Amino acid sequence: MKLPTDPARNLAALIRCPSVTPAEGGALQTLEDMLKPLGFSVERPVFSEDGTPDIENLYARRSGNGPHLMFAGHTDVVPVGDEAAWTHPPFSAEIANGEMYGRGAVDMKGGIACFIAAVARHVEKNGGPKGSVSLLITGDEEGPAINGTTKLLVWAAAKGEKWDASIVGEPTNPDAIGDMIKIGRRGSLSGSVIVNGRQGHAAYPQLADNPVRGLMSLVDALLHPVFDKGTKDFQPTNLEVTSIDVGNPATNVIPAKATATFNIRFNDTWDAETIQAEIHNRLDQAAGRKKYRPGKKTAVDYELVWRDRPSHVFLTRDEKLIDTMGGSVAAVVGKTPALSTSGGTSDARFIKDYCPVVEFGLVGKTMHMVDERVAVADLETLTRIYERFIEDWFGQGQT
Amino acid sequence: MKLPTDPARNLAALIRCPSVTPAEGGALQTLEDMLKPLGFSVERPVFSEDGTPDIENLYARRSGNGPHLMFAGHTDVVPVGDEAAWTHPPFSAEIANGEMYGRGAVDMKGGIACFIAAVARHVEKNGGPKGSVSLLITGDEEGPAINGTTKLLVWAAAKGEKWDASIVGEPTNPDAIGDMIKIGRRGSLSGSVIVNGRQGHAAYPQLADNPVRGLMSLVDALLHPVFDKGTKDFQPTNLEVTSIDVGNPATNVIPAKATATFNIRFNDTWDAETIQAEIHNRLDQAAGRKKYRPGKKTAVDYELVWRDRPSHVFLTRDEKLIDTMGGSVAAVVGKTPALSTSGGTSDARFIKDYCPVVEFGLVGKTMHMVDERVAVADLETLTRIYERFIEDWFGQGQT
Repeated sequence: MKLPTDPARNLAALIRCPSVTPAEGGALQTLEDMLKPLGFSVERPVFSEDGTPDIENLYARRSGNGPHLMFAGHTDVVPVGDEAAWTHPPFSAEIANGEMYGRGAVDMKGGIACFIAAVARHVEKNGGPKGSVSLLITGDEEGPAINGTTKLLVWAAAKGEKWDASIVGEPTNPDAIGDMIKIGRRGSLSGSVIVNGRQGHAAYPQLADNPVRGLMSLVDALLHPVFDKGTKDFQPTNLEVTSIDVGNPATNVIPAKATATFNIRFNDTWDAETIQAEIHNRLDQAAGRKKYRPGKKTAVDYELVWRDRPSHVFLTRDEKLIDTMGGSVAAVVGKTPALSTSGGTSDARFIKDYCPVVEFGLVGKTMHMVDERVAVADLETLTRIYERFIEDWFGQGQT
Repeated sequence: MKLPTDPARNLAALIRCPSVTPAEGGALQTLEDMLKPLGFSVERPVFSEDGTPDIENLYARRSGNGPHLMFAGHTDVVPVGDEAAWTHPPFSAEIANGEMYGRGAVDMKGGIACFIAAVARHVEKNGGPKGSVSLLITGDEEGPAINGTTKLLVWAAAKGEKWDASIVGEPTNPDAIGDMIKIGRRGSLSGSVIVNGRQGHAAYPQLADNPVRGLMSLVDALLHPVFDKGTKDFQPTNLEVTSIDVGNPATNVIPAKATATFNIRFNDTWDAETIQAEIHNRLDQAAGRKKYRPGKKTAVDYELVWRDRPSHVFLTRDEKLIDTMGGSVAAVVGKTPALSTSGGTSDARFIKDYCPVVEFGLVGKTMHMVDERVAVADLETLTRIYERFIEDWFGQGQT
């Protein structure tokens, strides 16, 4: 029986499964069919929650006598967008000019296809890695992410699973494979500031209280001064005002309420609690609110509402894990990758509570776009990097 | 035949006509029935414009040998709002505790009722004013104001009508009758500032351009510094930001566009053109746009769109008109009214292009509210003020 040692062949099989969140689309079944001949035991737990679609996930483990490496990823993909605009159909996996087209090609069926090929090559060459390897694959990364990685981790841990390190196979390279390993992520928090004024006629401002003026001061306090100048491992903390909304259609009316919504990406100068306190403090200062003087009238009447749950900042400090990944990249592509904490959040923020985690995968340029595609040569390169990583991290010949 | 010398009786008849804009509701017919016995010739031109309802208006003239006084007003009323919340039905004209309840009681069927009673008393006493008196009454003051006063003035002027002075009977008194005569009005202009940025992911602000930052600078430039400190006759010019809108629901997305809408009430330091130029200049400065350097990249990419037509500022300088009205008020109520240019715009801004105009009417407190009402005693007081004005302005016994 032919083992899944060819990443392009693995990826083509996965792309042909139309697994747009929340549909399984055959993708997990395809994975199971690849993993079983490699000696993996496979489970496919379904998680549910009121108000969200049921989601099927996959946990596969190949046990060995040694440390435990977990590869994490997702088979769900974002919608195809304007299907007519694709050069090749989004679920066909057609190859043109050395590139394979398809939704999920880089984000991130490609990463999974390469990791499975790497394990398969080890199994073929020397009977498999000298330790345990598992794949923790969700079908809910691009959706609400409620019935996915977080629940899968809790579920596996409850069964007694313990991991020594994890690789997340998201596309981490901005331009070329080998550019960048992610070794942490900034935290993320969103909130809305609502200023309450008093409605009135624009010709009689003395009888009204325009909340826009107050909101201007509060937004200014959110934007200035800068939160920090960055740290050794992280970019500066940054806040973006993502919306301001009043919704008053009448130009002769002073509105009663104005809302600004913001998102802050914060580095390891802060944690979710201290950055929330800083924002509260800035707003209170700008609003002219006297601290520790309850009952004192505030100059600007505002409320602050936090939205969603915060994503916590993290930095991986496992030198063996980072050095092994960096070394594998260097050995295969001949350049040293940047160790970065840039970009958005990823499922690594959940995994870091269980074991050290790094992220390395394909080139992200076309992710979420029409004509998402991957160079077939990149698939081979990434497979060789993962192969080398497995070799070095487990230690060849150890038991 | 009984002449309409009783203002309360006149007003009750008008309130019972449900003339919510654009409905005539019988109000103009009621006026015609009052005016004809007083010797007025009455015309009721209907004006039309695509996209707006047809509106019926009224022009009545009682010719005499002497100057021509025009009384201007409207019989249309705003909607009743929550009818169940009225203490007495809004079109019933019920009297309780000396107050007559009804939509339009003060804004401004009451003013019309009093002016007609004043003319009727003159007719009864001494055969009528020694000159020409006309009533220019629209049914479209509370609506779009397209088929109302402006067209009625053009229509009457085209027939050869010329006026020496005008009284607008809007409610001008803040608290008690005799408080305030309006002798001018600030101008009003509205516009929207649209800042164009570049959409992107909140985690990668360097790849995007958040338009909210640019809009903050521009709005600040609109609000500061103050435009002026007011003039001898006018309050300071004031700008209110009436709405800011982005409409971005995704907290992880930097939006592409942000819009602020503002309304400015300007005094006689400015005219519509100079205040527009000032605003353009402030925005250009704040945007970092180099004037006279076409093709130079602007720091903030914005557009300014003016909304509606500007209302022009005006100040009445006819001393005879102002002094006669002030003297009539003082003679009847025993106090000198303030001469004011405060508040919103009114139809006086159109009339001032034809003849000098002052505004004096009832107490405005309950206008546009549930339980709009007028003290019956105020109706008698205003009738006596108008009576005295007619006497003094035409000059008793002149021909």
